[in-house]
Amino acid sequence: MINIGIIGAGRIGKVHAESITYHVKEARVAAIADPFMNEATKTWAENLGIPKILTDYKEILSDDSIDAVLICSSTDTHADISIEAIKANKHVFCEKPISQDLTKIQAVIDTLKTSNVKFQVGFNRRFDHNFEAVRNAVAEGKIGDVHIVKVTSRDPDAPPIEYVKVSGGMFLDMTIHDFDMVRYLTSSDVVEVYAYGTSLVNPLISEVGDIDTAIITMKLANGALAMIDNSRKADYGYDQRAEVFGSKGQVAVTNDTPSTAVISTATGVTGEKPLYFFLERYMASFTKEVSLFVQAIINDTEVPVNIIDGLQPVLIAKAAKKSLDEHRPVLLSEIVM
Amino acid sequence: MINIGIIGAGRIGKVHAESITYHVKEARVAAIADPFMNEATKTWAENLGIPKILTDYKEILSDDSIDAVLICSSTDTHADISIEAIKANKHVFCEKPISQDLTKIQAVIDTLKTSNVKFQVGFNRRFDHNFEAVRNAVAEGKIGDVHIVKVTSRDPDAPPIEYVKVSGGMFLDMTIHDFDMVRYLTSSDVVEVYAYGTSLVNPLISEVGDIDTAIITMKLANGALAMIDNSRKADYGYDQRAEVFGSKGQVAVTNDTPSTAVISTATGVTGEKPLYFFLERYMASFTKEVSLFVQAIINDTEVPVNIIDGLQPVLIAKAAKKSLDEHRPVLLSEIVM
Amino acid sequence: MINIGIIGAGRIGKVHAESITYHVKEARVAAIADPFMNEATKTWAENLGIPKILTDYKEILSDDSIDAVLICSSTDTHADISIEAIKANKHVFCEKPISQDLTKIQAVIDTLKTSNVKFQVGFNRRFDHNFEAVRNAVAEGKIGDVHIVKVTSRDPDAPPIEYVKVSGGMFLDMTIHDFDMVRYLTSSDVVEVYAYGTSLVNPLISEVGDIDTAIITMKLANGALAMIDNSRKADYGYDQRAEVFGSKGQVAVTNDTPSTAVISTATGVTGEKPLYFFLERYMASFTKEVSLFVQAIINDTEVPVNIIDGLQPVLIAKAAKKSLDEHRPVLLSEIVM
Amino acid sequence: MINIGIIGAGRIGKVHAESITYHVKEARVAAIADPFMNEATKTWAENLGIPKILTDYKEILSDDSIDAVLICSSTDTHADISIEAIKANKHVFCEKPISQDLTKIQAVIDTLKTSNVKFQVGFNRRFDHNFEAVRNAVAEGKIGDVHIVKVTSRDPDAPPIEYVKVSGGMFLDMTIHDFDMVRYLTSSDVVEVYAYGTSLVNPLISEVGDIDTAIITMKLANGALAMIDNSRKADYGYDQRAEVFGSKGQVAVTNDTPSTAVISTATGVTGEKPLYFFLERYMASFTKEVSLFVQAIINDTEVPVNIIDGLQPVLIAKAAKKSLDEHRPVLLSEIVM
Repeated sequence: MINIGIIGAGRIGKVHAESITYHVKEARVAAIADPFMNEATKTWAENLGIPKILTDYKEILSDDSIDAVLICSSTDTHADISIEAIKANKHVFCEKPISQDLTKIQAVIDTLKTSNVKFQVGFNRRFDHNFEAVRNAVAEGKIGDVHIVKVTSRDPDAPPIEYVKVSGGMFLDMTIHDFDMVRYLTSSDVVEVYAYGTSLVNPLISEVGDIDTAIITMKLANGALAMIDNSRKADYGYDQRAEVFGSKGQVAVTNDTPSTAVISTATGVTGEKPLYFFLERYMASFTKEVSLFVQAIINDTEVPVNIIDGLQPVLIAKAAKKSLDEHRPVLLSEIVM
Repeated sequence: MINIGIIGAGRIGKVHAESITYHVKEARVAAIADPFMNEATKTWAENLGIPKILTDYKEILSDDSIDAVLICSSTDTHADISIEAIKANKHVFCEKPISQDLTKIQAVIDTLKTSNVKFQVGFNRRFDHNFEAVRNAVAEGKIGDVHIVKVTSRDPDAPPIEYVKVSGGMFLDMTIHDFDMVRYLTSSDVVEVYAYGTSLVNPLISEVGDIDTAIITMKLANGALAMIDNSRKADYGYDQRAEVFGSKGQVAVTNDTPSTAVISTATGVTGEKPLYFFLERYMASFTKEVSLFVQAIINDTEVPVNIIDGLQPVLIAKAAKKSLDEHRPVLLSEIVM
Repeated sequence: MINIGIIGAGRIGKVHAESITYHVKEARVAAIADPFMNEATKTWAENLGIPKILTDYKEILSDDSIDAVLICSSTDTHADISIEAIKANKHVFCEKPISQDLTKIQAVIDTLKTSNVKFQVGFNRRFDHNFEAVRNAVAEGKIGDVHIVKVTSRDPDAPPIEYVKVSGGMFLDMTIHDFDMVRYLTSSDVVEVYAYGTSLVNPLISEVGDIDTAIITMKLANGALAMIDNSRKADYGYDQRAEVFGSKGQVAVTNDTPSTAVISTATGVTGEKPLYFFLERYMASFTKEVSLFVQAIINDTEVPVNIIDGLQPVLIAKAAKKSLDEHRPVLLSEIVM
Repeated sequence: MINIGIIGAGRIGKVHAESITYHVKEARVAAIADPFMNEATKTWAENLGIPKILTDYKEILSDDSIDAVLICSSTDTHADISIEAIKANKHVFCEKPISQDLTKIQAVIDTLKTSNVKFQVGFNRRFDHNFEAVRNAVAEGKIGDVHIVKVTSRDPDAPPIEYVKVSGGMFLDMTIHDFDMVRYLTSSDVVEVYAYGTSLVNPLISEVGDIDTAIITMKLANGALAMIDNSRKADYGYDQRAEVFGSKGQVAVTNDTPSTAVISTATGVTGEKPLYFFLERYMASFTKEVSLFVQAIINDTEVPVNIIDGLQPVLIAKAAKKSLDEHRPVLLSEIVM
């Protein structure tokens, strides 16, 4: 039985706590810490049977009975707490992104070199049933050599402008999942990026220096080409699709819906809109990623998303931003730590 | 070059005349006859380049240069004209049904015994790309032995009540195509029929002794079971589907649409309605059936829909009507000529 | 917090125990009883945190701290235990069917008249996301008045012949869900049934007096017509579909699949097969039905599937069997308790 | 009745001749000319009833009874013959591209300034049922303001290397249709292009200086972004899709198939591959474009694809090639005539 401490009791921390309690039989949530622990969260944690409900995550790190931590705190603290946790000899599951600051990611990498703990990054979409099916088809050679990868990712609604201001920009906040997806589906690295971005959803977003609509093209190390399209707001909902085209064919996935119901009337033949947003769409993937993290600890095997997998999408996001700013293709090798 | 005379210049006669002129290279329309030949039709026929435009079909039958006739006159005349045409040594393509009167069909059968002409019945849906694909999959053994056949056939709107009165009833007028489809898809005969029918679309239809909604189940000679559902009015349009389920799988076809366009908005994900009605949906099949009739003449081979194929659906329709009237399953062998 | 005792620790008893523990926050499994309680099941129950692990269900009935029972024992014991439980003043959730013996169902009905406990029957498919969507579309009037209902239900493989022998026959064992579905989707009762049944999957099934392939048609109280098709073995897997056609249109649902992946190659455009069988396909519905049972207790409201809903499909199944045996349409009113 | 002369009796010239003869009632093919007129073509033309079968197109231009010409000769002759035909006061339908040489296109534009003849360019895909449905949905505001356009175009097989050598390069030979499609679907011009291209299908193609796989992104005058992906060889066949995403939703079209048949077996649920290639996929569009050309002549209205529509895709293709060569985004304004 793996004892887990969860650092951060916000939305994603709660998702993980419930996943572990209900679905990961080999692990239990031994403690949860949040500096802003309120009554509602406390009651929720008690009902879930979490023994220690804390405000200071350091109590988790100093607790010898705890084997692993999930870092679900705010993004700017991920790297520092990761380093502390590694030094405290805890296995670490860190939410994405590790950091928006490459120096900090490098510091985590350096710390890991002196340790034997597992370190996994929370790119949950890799564990979604649809994207796994694409990856498997590609890995099993069903479509031959990869030629073109296409990822569509559109949110159901733009975030509040206050969030946009501190988000690090759309590429680091939203597209980062799609950059990871390109690597995951192809098992190849990105070599070069060219990005077009603009603000068509909400002009306030451009006023604070960000974009809400983008198309990004990439050259991959294996010679394939990749393209992503993003929007902060699709009126019909959360649009999450991918295609991989290769020498022997194509594999594609489309959206999940609340049901398969199709209503045919005088006005047309109408199916349901996609599942609303990431909590509905990707809930099972949150459970699976943590379950695999626990398995990697128990069996002392490789984690499915390692620190390099955590680093690379940040590099691609920074290259995409540089491409947008400088209006030219940018090599990943231009992005220095 | 096969010279064809068309008897009857109504809607379906015109369809065939245009098909032959534009698409059947080995044949030409040498004459067309209609007792109610009007100026508009005459002009249409002249523009099409038909040399002889007549009111009396007997002039076609006595014309030695004419090899074959298409009988597109009113249903009650099909059998009599067929017999005359056979006796005049013309190959005959007769629109469905040959007759609603079994004695008359028997008379055609008897006449054919003394002749070498080709005789084809106009069950055009056999030549539709979708239903052909089902038939081929079944015939090629892709789904193994047939267990269950399902045919859905719904019209976009109920016919005028005046038409209903003289139609011979829904089973003979509309379901007859579906009875033929069951035989075509399975290459098996129907042994027994049970029918439920009612009037849910338009109460006037029941007042004139007919139905507008029906489900019919059947036992086939090969041991399989079949089911048909019919409605005179589907608000979303002409619904023409079939499934065949067997020991190794299933093959199914759905409706054709004007385009593959799907519009996703806040109200749902909406595709197009089916093609409006039989002229839109089955136009290519009208061309194909006549083309194959011409091929059978040229190559002196079997026609693809022979007189027995024309007879059987009439027998099934009569058994279905008897089942409805007597509220019990009816064997086809109970229907006597 | 509702304390629940589970009677029967077989497959479905375990499913309910896990559902309640993980997903029904207002209830807990206070006890589980099974006369064949083995070590593996005992360990499973302990790990789930069930306080009382028993062999005699009567200990559950006599336990005053227990509010409700789930009867998951073998079918032939459902009715008797139901009666005992009602008399012990426990709310009852009884797996389907209540009994294959109408007298026993009547005895449960009679017992309920003298009690205020809730009694719910386990027709779980009513709580499946797809079928709920159909029901809601119909109930909201989106397709107008119901004209035709179609239910397709095919298992991925035939049960062992030993099971078939004691199953009560396909109509009571398998089609019973589809009979319930027809009532659920239309909110109407069945008036008359006509059935064709045969053995095409496995000849041994006919040797033991049962069928494996059937098509059943029905007349409903609201004037609509219904049709069901069943097979014990679909090579492509568990086929669970429904359509309701009405005066304003149609609503249809198709199968759920493991993913939306479609692979296009030189051999075709191939999607995934349906989810394997009922545990995969309907797992969420098992949770939902029990959750609603608990809600009905807490809020003292009507249960969503009452004893009449439990009785009716048994009556229809018996009418269908009589139709098959006597080769004629059978009124439900002919089936006497 | 419009008399048409066809210049060039190759594959596309024949397609147009048959379309006009069979489907365009207001026009007839009065003459056809080809310097390599052989016996087979002569016989074909005679059977079609074309009165004048010529080797020298100048005989068509000097024939006063001829109203319009279709220029279906080799690409390098399009512009010169167009100019001659305009000067001979013939309406001109010119196959795409007008020329790969911008100076020649400019010469045609200049010649048109002094004439009143109609001049239409053969971008037939605009008249495909699927792409028309997308364009109409966009034009009717169903998806709001356009944000992102995506066009996928993949051929079923790469052309022979001898063809590649003289094709003018993939962008001018193949992508040119997709560049036109972007303009057509959005009613907006392209401002800037960035292209990635490579040779993954056949290394010989890169040896002759061309590419076979490309992704191209564009900025449009209306602020929207566009992306195209191309391959010279999709193993599953001719892949022709488009999506337009906007402020209120999305419209998308997928491939046409020979039938809607879906076969479900133990190995999966398999539909048909796309229609094989452009003659199968776009046949109806060839008829429609010529029919609209004839209408424009008769009604003296604007042609649906004018010379600017013919010029723009050539400019975009040249910008894309420059982008590929110089490895940077290229403005259309950089391409000088």
